[in-house]
Amino acid sequence: MCSEKYSFETLSVTEPSKYVYQVEMNRPTKLNAMNMEFWSEMRTCFSEIAGDPNCRVVVLSGSGRVFTAGLDLKAAGDMLLSHQETEVGRRGFLLRSLIPPMQESFTVIEKCPKPVIAAVHNACVGGGIDMISACDIRLCSQDAFFVIKEVDLGLAADVGTLQRFRSRVFSDKKTLLAGALDLANSISKKSPVAIQGSKVNLVYARDHSVQESLDFQVAWNSLMLQSEDLPKAVMAGMQKEAPEFSKL
Amino acid sequence: MCSEKYSFETLSVTEPSKYVYQVEMNRPTKLNAMNMEFWSEMRTCFSEIAGDPNCRVVVLSGSGRVFTAGLDLKAAGDMLLSHQETEVGRRGFLLRSLIPPMQESFTVIEKCPKPVIAAVHNACVGGGIDMISACDIRLCSQDAFFVIKEVDLGLAADVGTLQRFRSRVFSDKKTLLAGALDLANSISKKSPVAIQGSKVNLVYARDHSVQESLDFQVAWNSLMLQSEDLPKAVMAGMQKEAPEFSKL
Amino acid sequence: MCSEKYSFETLSVTEPSKYVYQVEMNRPTKLNAMNMEFWSEMRTCFSEIAGDPNCRVVVLSGSGRVFTAGLDLKAAGDMLLSHQETEVGRRGFLLRSLIPPMQESFTVIEKCPKPVIAAVHNACVGGGIDMISACDIRLCSQDAFFVIKEVDLGLAADVGTLQRFRSRVFSDKKTLLAGALDLANSISKKSPVAIQGSKVNLVYARDHSVQESLDFQVAWNSLMLQSEDLPKAVMAGMQKEAPEFSKL
Amino acid sequence: MCSEKYSFETLSVTEPSKYVYQVEMNRPTKLNAMNMEFWSEMRTCFSEIAGDPNCRVVVLSGSGRVFTAGLDLKAAGDMLLSHQETEVGRRGFLLRSLIPPMQESFTVIEKCPKPVIAAVHNACVGGGIDMISACDIRLCSQDAFFVIKEVDLGLAADVGTLQRFRSRVFSDKKTLLAGALDLANSISKKSPVAIQGSKVNLVYARDHSVQESLDFQVAWNSLMLQSEDLPKAVMAGMQKEAPEFSKL
Amino acid sequence: MCSEKYSFETLSVTEPSKYVYQVEMNRPTKLNAMNMEFWSEMRTCFSEIAGDPNCRVVVLSGSGRVFTAGLDLKAAGDMLLSHQETEVGRRGFLLRSLIPPMQESFTVIEKCPKPVIAAVHNACVGGGIDMISACDIRLCSQDAFFVIKEVDLGLAADVGTLQRFRSRVFSDKKTLLAGALDLANSISKKSPVAIQGSKVNLVYARDHSVQESLDFQVAWNSLMLQSEDLPKAVMAGMQKEAPEFSKL
Amino acid sequence: MCSEKYSFETLSVTEPSKYVYQVEMNRPTKLNAMNMEFWSEMRTCFSEIAGDPNCRVVVLSGSGRVFTAGLDLKAAGDMLLSHQETEVGRRGFLLRSLIPPMQESFTVIEKCPKPVIAAVHNACVGGGIDMISACDIRLCSQDAFFVIKEVDLGLAADVGTLQRFRSRVFSDKKTLLAGALDLANSISKKSPVAIQGSKVNLVYARDHSVQESLDFQVAWNSLMLQSEDLPKAVMAGMQKEAPEFSKL
Repeated sequence: MCSEKYSFETLSVTEPSKYVYQVEMNRPTKLNAMNMEFWSEMRTCFSEIAGDPNCRVVVLSGSGRVFTAGLDLKAAGDMLLSHQETEVGRRGFLLRSLIPPMQESFTVIEKCPKPVIAAVHNACVGGGIDMISACDIRLCSQDAFFVIKEVDLGLAADVGTLQRFRSRVFSDKKTLLAGALDLANSISKKSPVAIQGSKVNLVYARDHSVQESLDFQVAWNSLMLQSEDLPKAVMAGMQKEAPEFSKL
Repeated sequence: MCSEKYSFETLSVTEPSKYVYQVEMNRPTKLNAMNMEFWSEMRTCFSEIAGDPNCRVVVLSGSGRVFTAGLDLKAAGDMLLSHQETEVGRRGFLLRSLIPPMQESFTVIEKCPKPVIAAVHNACVGGGIDMISACDIRLCSQDAFFVIKEVDLGLAADVGTLQRFRSRVFSDKKTLLAGALDLANSISKKSPVAIQGSKVNLVYARDHSVQESLDFQVAWNSLMLQSEDLPKAVMAGMQKEAPEFSKL
Repeated sequence: MCSEKYSFETLSVTEPSKYVYQVEMNRPTKLNAMNMEFWSEMRTCFSEIAGDPNCRVVVLSGSGRVFTAGLDLKAAGDMLLSHQETEVGRRGFLLRSLIPPMQESFTVIEKCPKPVIAAVHNACVGGGIDMISACDIRLCSQDAFFVIKEVDLGLAADVGTLQRFRSRVFSDKKTLLAGALDLANSISKKSPVAIQGSKVNLVYARDHSVQESLDFQVAWNSLMLQSEDLPKAVMAGMQKEAPEFSKL
Repeated sequence: MCSEKYSFETLSVTEPSKYVYQVEMNRPTKLNAMNMEFWSEMRTCFSEIAGDPNCRVVVLSGSGRVFTAGLDLKAAGDMLLSHQETEVGRRGFLLRSLIPPMQESFTVIEKCPKPVIAAVHNACVGGGIDMISACDIRLCSQDAFFVIKEVDLGLAADVGTLQRFRSRVFSDKKTLLAGALDLANSISKKSPVAIQGSKVNLVYARDHSVQESLDFQVAWNSLMLQSEDLPKAVMAGMQKEAPEFSKL
Repeated sequence: MCSEKYSFETLSVTEPSKYVYQVEMNRPTKLNAMNMEFWSEMRTCFSEIAGDPNCRVVVLSGSGRVFTAGLDLKAAGDMLLSHQETEVGRRGFLLRSLIPPMQESFTVIEKCPKPVIAAVHNACVGGGIDMISACDIRLCSQDAFFVIKEVDLGLAADVGTLQRFRSRVFSDKKTLLAGALDLANSISKKSPVAIQGSKVNLVYARDHSVQESLDFQVAWNSLMLQSEDLPKAVMAGMQKEAPEFSKL
Repeated sequence: MCSEKYSFETLSVTEPSKYVYQVEMNRPTKLNAMNMEFWSEMRTCFSEIAGDPNCRVVVLSGSGRVFTAGLDLKAAGDMLLSHQETEVGRRGFLLRSLIPPMQESFTVIEKCPKPVIAAVHNACVGGGIDMISACDIRLCSQDAFFVIKEVDLGLAADVGTLQRFRSRVFSDKKTLLAGALDLANSISKKSPVAIQGSKVNLVYARDHSVQESLDFQVAWNSLMLQSEDLPKAVMAGMQKEAPEFSKL
């Protein structure tokens, strides 16, 4: 059971099948609004998952009626108001120290070398869109809808919704989760050396020129082509058996 | 009335509603072909708009039968032919000084922090495509069509049609303009601090890595989260009223 | 006839119409699997084409039942196994020397300034997808299908399938090839100065910021606007005749 | 006293004068060799300092006979040997997770917006050179010497000795420390908004083009020119008094 | 005489020898402090010089007792104080519009393809250092001294003093100017195609990787090796005569 | 003996001591001017050396009275003149194909992972400076002098003299070569995994930001820290013996 190492106030982490973890935002009565604990626990949770050999793929979902209402406005408002006396330059330094950890709360999803599948149902608001834009695959139910509220609040989005994404659609939340777990399952059976190598190189390729990405892939494969997973996969393929990869 | 400050030969600038400017290419008998005056007036017009507190959003359209026939070939031909005696190296330096100002004529659209909505009807040829590719939003009527002629003329495109774009479609020019102005209207009521901040950061994000974009956003928001627009918008939201933002 | 200069074991090169070359993968009994000769001959073939004034556009197709089965696993396996005694660091240096030439086998397609049209039918597997992602235009028949096998083999793709692509669809292989050659034909009649300039600048733009791409275009056009192709095309346009461009 | 918040095994932190902190490597009997605790405590120490309003400038020195013997080879050897059974791919992932935190141990010096002055005496070996290359100013005594040992150990340097540096020279350790503290003192009396802004912008400029650095500076100064420190400094200058800046 | 086209309040432009222009900061009673006119006139002056075929090289000096006292604090103070009522976000946008034109006042020196030689005597303060750091060659007299005042004023430097520079030293202002004009003279006799090409490519190389710089040089030389200056220089070299290059 | 594999017209390759190769420009009667054969043979020679396990370090010198007179002007002139009939655009494409191979003739020095020591005596002109700027270490005799002639010829340098370099000075050519071979000797005894890794990472660091260089080093060391050279070097160090590294 993974639950001991992953005990959080705002997140529930379960292991629905071998090597598959489900991370669920878990404040349903608050519409999974993102409060201070949430931002902090996301960082801890995905940093832990990044190095956990029992996890090869993650499904990220929301418990209750909606996926997430986004930023918890009350918490954010308190934070902003508590420094109104400070002069503008020092207040700027303060904000400068507060924003990066919140950005990091979603960047950890991208830094985690394991694929993360977002399963979105009903409302996905503000910061929720930032969050799923850092995931590798996005699935949603037919009742899913997306709202970028930042502009209405007089502020520009700052945690990363600058990525486009496509999304496969399921009829309702139940079939959505079943579909997400199925997909996670099939990924969990592949070589983790290959899967995690693909994610690391795809993320690298997004931010570099084609030539730089090819160079990085050379550095990567000079090591990883020596892994036991490659002959293991070839052997299994020839014998039409399912390969069994050791933990990573 | 904005017309005094914006008196041009090839462009007509009007203010169909508060904070909304319409810039219309205005040489209908010449199919709004882009002559020397046009290239120069575009730079003046959008540089002026960039700092004009009465404008929050721009609709860019073409008067008459077509949107634009693109580069005015006669004007361009005269320019190229007038230096045929010059030796090749010096002619190269000359071209090197002529092309950047023409590129700048469309780059000003992008540098202007206010959203620019292109409303395209009928023909949009050559340079017209370069121009709308520098806009933020593109709408078109059902009879709109797009022609990249440069290759047929023996030259590679050089004012920037290297961007893809999508476009919402309206039934005819009249409903197109109505739709464009509606959209402009709703944008003009939002916080200009938030709208212009979003455009600046989106343009930045297009040309930088995700991490660099996040860093730039931190520098930006350390200042802009201190603006009065944020509490004003929150307050209005709580009282279910329309916020009134001061000029920017 | 182009065949003398282009005599290969794994590729057949023909000239179906003036200025149009067809490069066909030509090991149908091996499903056009990519063996050592193939990787080497691709480099020679496209480097030669890059400077061949008789070629202005290339159609890349596969002979026989499938487009290509991708990497020849037997050849690759032999290569990897033959160095199993070597210690891990030196084996890494060895791989480091083996991968870049294979990457170069597809990068030559991109470096070749002439447009390359991939005509894909039936199976296109693994390395085949890397190859067509380096082409400029992709067409396919209705029975075409695409398989990324690397992950199943326990290794991350390393020859460049990090590009998205769209593809026009034809009913069968015969109409596909006819369509591809038609398209090639119409391209071959345009100014080669303009066509090759467009390809060079598009490839450049993909990996640089908009401003850097505009600057590069200025350097390029300071020279190429002085070419005879520009007045030739304008003249022909005015006289409604087809221009005849000299070889490049 | 700053010592309570900064209680470490391998580092001693004192406050020799107001706003000046001295961080001393403090394992003199081990020649200040860098063991696991050291790498971890460096991260904690400088992350803490980054946000500590009582600190405006740091002097980094070594207690005892030498500055530092660099990496603690016994600790590093144990770490490398403990995973010799693991297959090469997974061992690679393991190393991939171990190296970045060690790099971060010196990158925190650079991320800390306060100037860090390295005061080097006697031997500065291996990792010590990496460490001082992340500092802003380097001073040394006449008996200081620098040894890059990595190459002799069969491995390439990996924590950042790719920066050149110059160094002012003092006669012995005592005058070196006095000189370093003097310099720190004079820095500590300047506006912290200006000093920290300069460091942030200098680090940014090192890794970006001149134009990008100018753009970043605009974003920065749009905020910081509004700080109270600017009029305060001007006023003090006019009245020939020493300005007193509030904490940051 | 160049003086008609170059009539300024704060700058004096003369032509001490053929193809050599001397731009002199000309407010000696104000210690050549940089006021609003100065910033604006610098942009006009160097933009004009960039395209002036009578100028091949520029000497930049200061009239009177000092080179320059830097930013005119009174003018700057007035500007900052005049918007103290504006709320912080809008004041930020205002500053954001004021700083780039001042940066541009020195960037024009770099954009101008002709070499600019700074001849510095006595005090060179603040903005003066920013200015000479944008020049190509820096010479100075023995009494020259350099002061970065920004930090003392509570603000970080923002017009570009992030470049290192070396400087040849002359005994006094008179020999300094003679030396600067001598150097300018010898440059003015070289091929302007070669000199300006070298400056453009050196500036490019500073901000790009070696490979990108080599690629840019290829685009550049594909044109410029076709210039008449190359055979003219070779011919003159063979006949041991001084070549006479036509205007550029 | 290495001479069989390295038989050239313009270069002589010898092996003065184990693992040390000396590449000598060998047209002393032509002052080692760089003709077409030279450019081609440099590419072949250093590509071969890059993968030759018998070579760990290279000394690059010139036979006869001078190091090199640079570009062979007669050969270059013939090449430029032979295409004078071609129209300007096509001539530009021709130059575009001729320059990159010449650039590659020096870039191979940089791509070769083995350190290359330039030993310069007497005249080093034009292309010679480009060549030594691609080497890793530069030594020279007291009579060495350097001439950049390109600007006098009416053309901008295009093979890479945009790097600064320092140079240790010896009294004459004989002691220079002895010193260079001594240095080469001591390098040849270090771990080739470490030496070549350092060169690859230093070249990478020159063209990337510090963070990107640190990331690349992680990818590199995840493999290379597993090499046998590391424990071998540690063991030898403990037993105070000289380690013997196997070929690479």
